[in-house]
Amino acid sequence: MDFVGQSILSVDQFERADVERVFDIADAMAPYAHRTHITRVLRGAILSNMFFEPSTRTRISFGSAFNLLGGEVRETTEIRETSFAKGESLQDTARVLSGYSDIVVMRHPQPGSVSAFAGASRVPVINGGDGANEHPSQALLDLYTVRKEMAVLGRGIDGLRIALVGDLKYGRAVHSLCKLLGLFSRVAFNLASPPGLEAPPEITERLQTQGHVVQQSHHLERSIHHVDIVYVTRTQEERFASPAEANRYRGLFRLNQAVYTEHCEPNTVIMHPLPRDSRSEARELDDDLNANPNLAIFRQTDNGVLVRMALFAMVLDVVDQVHQHAMPVTWYTGKRTPR
Amino acid sequence: MDFVGQSILSVDQFERADVERVFDIADAMAPYAHRTHITRVLRGAILSNMFFEPSTRTRISFGSAFNLLGGEVRETTEIRETSFAKGESLQDTARVLSGYSDIVVMRHPQPGSVSAFAGASRVPVINGGDGANEHPSQALLDLYTVRKEMAVLGRGIDGLRIALVGDLKYGRAVHSLCKLLGLFSRVAFNLASPPGLEAPPEITERLQTQGHVVQQSHHLERSIHHVDIVYVTRTQEERFASPAEANRYRGLFRLNQAVYTEHCEPNTVIMHPLPRDSRSEARELDDDLNANPNLAIFRQTDNGVLVRMALFAMVLDVVDQVHQHAMPVTWYTGKRTPR
Amino acid sequence: MDFVGQSILSVDQFERADVERVFDIADAMAPYAHRTHITRVLRGAILSNMFFEPSTRTRISFGSAFNLLGGEVRETTEIRETSFAKGESLQDTARVLSGYSDIVVMRHPQPGSVSAFAGASRVPVINGGDGANEHPSQALLDLYTVRKEMAVLGRGIDGLRIALVGDLKYGRAVHSLCKLLGLFSRVAFNLASPPGLEAPPEITERLQTQGHVVQQSHHLERSIHHVDIVYVTRTQEERFASPAEANRYRGLFRLNQAVYTEHCEPNTVIMHPLPRDSRSEARELDDDLNANPNLAIFRQTDNGVLVRMALFAMVLDVVDQVHQHAMPVTWYTGKRTPR
Repeated sequence: MDFVGQSILSVDQFERADVERVFDIADAMAPYAHRTHITRVLRGAILSNMFFEPSTRTRISFGSAFNLLGGEVRETTEIRETSFAKGESLQDTARVLSGYSDIVVMRHPQPGSVSAFAGASRVPVINGGDGANEHPSQALLDLYTVRKEMAVLGRGIDGLRIALVGDLKYGRAVHSLCKLLGLFSRVAFNLASPPGLEAPPEITERLQTQGHVVQQSHHLERSIHHVDIVYVTRTQEERFASPAEANRYRGLFRLNQAVYTEHCEPNTVIMHPLPRDSRSEARELDDDLNANPNLAIFRQTDNGVLVRMALFAMVLDVVDQVHQHAMPVTWYTGKRTPR
Repeated sequence: MDFVGQSILSVDQFERADVERVFDIADAMAPYAHRTHITRVLRGAILSNMFFEPSTRTRISFGSAFNLLGGEVRETTEIRETSFAKGESLQDTARVLSGYSDIVVMRHPQPGSVSAFAGASRVPVINGGDGANEHPSQALLDLYTVRKEMAVLGRGIDGLRIALVGDLKYGRAVHSLCKLLGLFSRVAFNLASPPGLEAPPEITERLQTQGHVVQQSHHLERSIHHVDIVYVTRTQEERFASPAEANRYRGLFRLNQAVYTEHCEPNTVIMHPLPRDSRSEARELDDDLNANPNLAIFRQTDNGVLVRMALFAMVLDVVDQVHQHAMPVTWYTGKRTPR
Repeated sequence: MDFVGQSILSVDQFERADVERVFDIADAMAPYAHRTHITRVLRGAILSNMFFEPSTRTRISFGSAFNLLGGEVRETTEIRETSFAKGESLQDTARVLSGYSDIVVMRHPQPGSVSAFAGASRVPVINGGDGANEHPSQALLDLYTVRKEMAVLGRGIDGLRIALVGDLKYGRAVHSLCKLLGLFSRVAFNLASPPGLEAPPEITERLQTQGHVVQQSHHLERSIHHVDIVYVTRTQEERFASPAEANRYRGLFRLNQAVYTEHCEPNTVIMHPLPRDSRSEARELDDDLNANPNLAIFRQTDNGVLVRMALFAMVLDVVDQVHQHAMPVTWYTGKRTPR
């Protein structure tokens, strides 16, 4: 599967070999994302970055990735801007807007809407998140981060031990990551959530069927003892019936430096799909971990640009041309890591 | 009239020869809009795409057209973002913002506002719609579509038979299209609207004075019998005194495949300025016509990019330079037409 | 201080030599801002133009300045778009979003927020206004305008006589301009405000300590008699406890052509940070001055683009490369000055 001209709608489209190819291409994007070189391979191409639900980080990440390949970005950020209010069907919107660009990234609160849009679009569509359903580039950047963090230790994804902790019921990122990890061999999953926020059975049963080891509990501390990675999630309050309902769960699971020191092996990598909730009543991942070199959460978001560049390059069939359009960067680029 | 450095505010600025020149230039833009080539003729130029009223399709169409010529786009999408709330006059806003760009596209809900803005602007302004008043690029893309659809049949615009059906009172697009069609010879107009939504007398009288044949009725079916084109409009609910008032008219005129088959000549072209209202209570143009090859509504919006490129090229005086900056496209561009 | 890789957060970072260097660089940007040439020196660079408070003119001015240097712009315009609503800290937002770009411009309603953001950012940050605190590029463009207006008369900033009139209590622009003027020699300040809106004592005392002459009054007319420049400010109603409180002051000070003719020396330059309030109850700077050639308010905003280009060029270390990437403009650029 080379994905040329294809829409990227779901992690279900990816086999293990596909995932590894995306990651190899993402690796090749590093000189451009890290600003030692620029490439103009998509000069003149236009991305329609259509966000019918607010998501600043995902929107800017996709837009920057396209700019880094040399393309232009047109954008919409607000659902009320659209013609939906005048009764236009999603299919009409898709057919019209896809006439203005070479590729579309779309985020929309309604599950299935991006696939429906892609069905009527004249150009490839990348799903930037459709409600509780799918957000494939997030899952890919998470797994790409797992690969890079493990590579530092001379290891691969096969045989990984990972704890997934927090809201496993509504956490779309966790569900998709589980699907992708399932493509690999002998992964040990420790799933820990507050009672009522367990992972859906179809997720856990699929993993077991694939031969992985799945342990479930309601205890944060016990779940993180013997793992390579702790993946923490925020309570997805926007998916609950009411804020009060979400509040019942907020703050129950808190990973901080003291818990980490007491329970985790040295060099256990900490991940989180972000944003993390730093308000005192939540703090599922405490700011006191910011100095911990194993905190990989910002490496995750940086990796997101590489993965999104890779997806664009694959779909628009320029993987082999990227380096032909490379030039050295001549401006100040001393990206620094703040304390 | 070459329009170099001129603002495009109204269809009244166009004589027949001007319209034909715009269309010839639009034809020449096809290689760029259809992505066989890119051009960088406006490299370094900046468009201020100022939308003080939501209109995603028009905004993205203008922005993409400018990108396709190689220029950059700065944008504003929200009236409350502006300094109007602090008591700034439209003239001050115009003088300031026109200092930041080479050309301005402006949409604003208030009739006459774009002309007022243009009067104080330091750069040319294109009217992207000022309330119920004017939207000249829409009228031009509609007529350009008429020309292309008729050309397929070996015909021109002279002698056209066209039915305009629906809300002819508030439909700005219809009024402007009538003015442009009036520049040609022997056009036969069938105007059909629900009682109360007739075209204004100044429109019909002008057409008759110009020697065209105008027939008016309240019957959709009879009006579409012997015409080349049926141009359907949505009930412009935002122009009515209240939603309840608009609801009285919604759904009265419905063109669907059954009506088309029974009443229209074969190959009658169907147009609509979009968005169409696909909710069950409206459906002035039914989705069951989507498979009809004579449905030209998406060809219309695609043509809009060509026409807007032509306007930019004329105003910024690069018509003769566009092809000098052309390069072949090297990425995937298999634009497809979905079912 | 060369500012390479540095954040620009406050006018306090600037010594007199720094200010003069910014202005020399701004002068060198004129061919690009005035569209006789384009430069592509920042080709491939990305600005994150992050406005967490509406300010169309400042946002477009920064964005256009970056485009004029050849760079790309990614943007956010709405506070509710952000992850703040999900409890994300400003530091997390900074660390994530700064991974997507080469430089950030940020505006935010909360004083100190931009510095906090810069502390966690991986790339340089330019303060585009943080509430009542700082807006350094506005102060620099104001002083740059002073320099250019005085240069026409064969004079410099030393020895300047300036009246600052209106809301001197909440006018952030006035405070910062006073700080920068304080770096020069023998400036005579006439500060005139309605009772209750006087300049803060720390501002006036600092100027006096630096050896400048400061006169304070509550009379517009007397303050503008023997000055080179009258700098008028709007009542900053958004900083008052309530609209009613602000209304008590609105309209008390009004400069119009009659007042100007009666009280000002010929060629007294009129400045204003804009927007001016042109509603009948305010009119601190009347539209009847628009024909007065000494009205410099639009020259101010045009100068803003030059100053912001200079700041970008300094921070990204391309000052000496700008002209190497220059090309003549080939499109229509007859910028005109409307009546």
